[in-house]
Amino acid sequence: MPDLPLIRLLPGRDRRAKAGHPWVFSNEVAMTPAARAIPPGSAVRVEADDGARLGVHHFNPHSLIAARRLARDPDAAIDDAFWGARLAEALSLRERLFATPHYRLVHAEADGMPGLVLDRYGDLVALQANTAGMEAATPSILRALDALIAPRAVVARNEAGVRALEGLPEATLLLRGTEATGTVEEGGVRFSVDPLGGQKTGWFFDQRENRARVANLARGETVLDAFCHTGGFGLQAAAAGAARVTLLDRSEHALATAMETARRNGLDDRVEALRGEAMEGLERLGREGTRYGVVVVDPPAFAKSRKDIPAAVRAYGRLARLAAALVAPGGFLFIASCSHHVPSGEFADTVLAGLQRARRDARILALTGAGPDHPLHPMLPESAYLKALTLQLS
Amino acid sequence: MPDLPLIRLLPGRDRRAKAGHPWVFSNEVAMTPAARAIPPGSAVRVEADDGARLGVHHFNPHSLIAARRLARDPDAAIDDAFWGARLAEALSLRERLFATPHYRLVHAEADGMPGLVLDRYGDLVALQANTAGMEAATPSILRALDALIAPRAVVARNEAGVRALEGLPEATLLLRGTEATGTVEEGGVRFSVDPLGGQKTGWFFDQRENRARVANLARGETVLDAFCHTGGFGLQAAAAGAARVTLLDRSEHALATAMETARRNGLDDRVEALRGEAMEGLERLGREGTRYGVVVVDPPAFAKSRKDIPAAVRAYGRLARLAAALVAPGGFLFIASCSHHVPSGEFADTVLAGLQRARRDARILALTGAGPDHPLHPMLPESAYLKALTLQLS
Repeated sequence: MPDLPLIRLLPGRDRRAKAGHPWVFSNEVAMTPAARAIPPGSAVRVEADDGARLGVHHFNPHSLIAARRLARDPDAAIDDAFWGARLAEALSLRERLFATPHYRLVHAEADGMPGLVLDRYGDLVALQANTAGMEAATPSILRALDALIAPRAVVARNEAGVRALEGLPEATLLLRGTEATGTVEEGGVRFSVDPLGGQKTGWFFDQRENRARVANLARGETVLDAFCHTGGFGLQAAAAGAARVTLLDRSEHALATAMETARRNGLDDRVEALRGEAMEGLERLGREGTRYGVVVVDPPAFAKSRKDIPAAVRAYGRLARLAAALVAPGGFLFIASCSHHVPSGEFADTVLAGLQRARRDARILALTGAGPDHPLHPMLPESAYLKALTLQLS
Repeated sequence: MPDLPLIRLLPGRDRRAKAGHPWVFSNEVAMTPAARAIPPGSAVRVEADDGARLGVHHFNPHSLIAARRLARDPDAAIDDAFWGARLAEALSLRERLFATPHYRLVHAEADGMPGLVLDRYGDLVALQANTAGMEAATPSILRALDALIAPRAVVARNEAGVRALEGLPEATLLLRGTEATGTVEEGGVRFSVDPLGGQKTGWFFDQRENRARVANLARGETVLDAFCHTGGFGLQAAAAGAARVTLLDRSEHALATAMETARRNGLDDRVEALRGEAMEGLERLGREGTRYGVVVVDPPAFAKSRKDIPAAVRAYGRLARLAAALVAPGGFLFIASCSHHVPSGEFADTVLAGLQRARRDARILALTGAGPDHPLHPMLPESAYLKALTLQLS
């Protein structure tokens, strides 16, 4: 194996990397002409200025996050065997966690594969390569997938905004196979997924445990699922025995998909679709005096960047107030935020302030995050983007 | 109904109460001779200096937390009907959450019954009254229990240190019935509980979801359950298919109880008991080179007060280091803290630092707290005493 290029850190800029952080920032690197000339996405060895060997990294001289650690072992070979072993480890964890082959199979840094996300729907896989390194490693990843689970189709859903930071184009395409629709089974409901045409990778696995939690509360109750997308929360609540489920979303296509899923699962006698902006819909239902046993509010990210934080926090507070007004006495409110930039404590505070404005006392039943197929890297606690409150209102 | 005594807050000391906090501190109260003469545990009306009516509270002029809100309605009657309604609400939530009648039935402030804890084992109930108000209300609580679930036995486990702050003696006694042993069913195992003779109220319901989480990871693995007490984690792991379970505890009685439970549940062929101080036991097993697929570390509270925090944080770090050394590559570590005084973030940081000292990389699979039968009052986030990390080590 040829020697990998060597990247050296600047004097005094090695504390983070030596402490085990998986990222090296560009202002920590001695950006010599040689370093700058390394093709983005190459594997490199990284050393501190004092010669301490910090392992093998993916390198991109044009990215703010210049290097992402692949292995602590400075002699690690980054070959098909390496990727195969990493993928086998990630797969083994998920097979232990879940009874059916539907899960986030790889969750980037925490799975030792920085920048790579794989979602698995049985024999269909959706892939996101968010770094030049993972773009370059994609052929190896495909071979590893073939060897381990032989998917009939693999879709690249390479459209995350972070790719631009790595100098990569957006691209959604079929990498393997001829057709890429599939199904995911959760909470007794079979949902269709369409990773080529749908939103993100086709299914939000991160809310799996939260959907089960809400479904368990919904037996015999009326349920409002706001920002329902394709009905993950609402339809599982219906399957768990909810009396009636109202799905609210702005997207006609999402609602049509959800109602088709309801029909195919024999749930359509208890499910109705309501089209509209969720915030306005909540307000209108409140004015009309409608009340529900369970209200679910699972909006898209309100804060796409740091500057959006104050407006996002206000929006979560307003949502909480509007949603709380719709919850019958003794009923339940589930409200989530997937805004990476809004910390858990601030989200909880704004939601609870919203309840106060709605003059509703509450019990906090759970403050939860993403499920265990979305592990966290210990040095990247800020990657815990999802937070959700399950509340009972008096 | 006779008028309740009136307690007035001092000028400028009403912000917390007006914001909805359920407690009034003694330095916020106009402690007139009349107020001081009110018998501890009486129900009183509370008003701000400006006349704003802040509801009905339990009052104790000798306690730092002088008043605890029972109802926002200033005209609420605190009678048997009141307690019956509160208990019915708490019961209805638990019946929705759980398939079997084994749970924390009342969790104090969050259930609108400040200072009262009830644990239910079918027709056996353990009661903790931690305030003078709840001591006085105990006869009403017993009548409400009789009406709703007719327990054959109720044990008062009135020994929490906080009772001294309320001027109450410690007392463990049978309030109803003639005999007070029972069973709790969890994770397919029937455990004996002895709320009169055992530790605390006899069972730690707060870890129910965490025990299920660990059991799900333990199939086919060897398991070490340190600080096992009566074997809640270890025996449920055995029932879920663990290959071999080692229970480690300093208490011969706890180990004997655990092994008897193993025998009665047909699990004793896969379970062994190891007596010793858990910290020393972990160290010794590490020296001997023993490794496990799953290690559980669920110690008693290390920080009983604020001054214990630094030592407690060090102890959790040391435990994490010793435990991590025992986890086989790819295996799992579950580590918990029930120290009220150690915040979640600090606990996570010290555990992760311990892993670093053990030179073990990790995935964080879950950061969890107590189950939903231990709800939180929105204004008392500090009452979230339990935090637990589920980790996979490389």
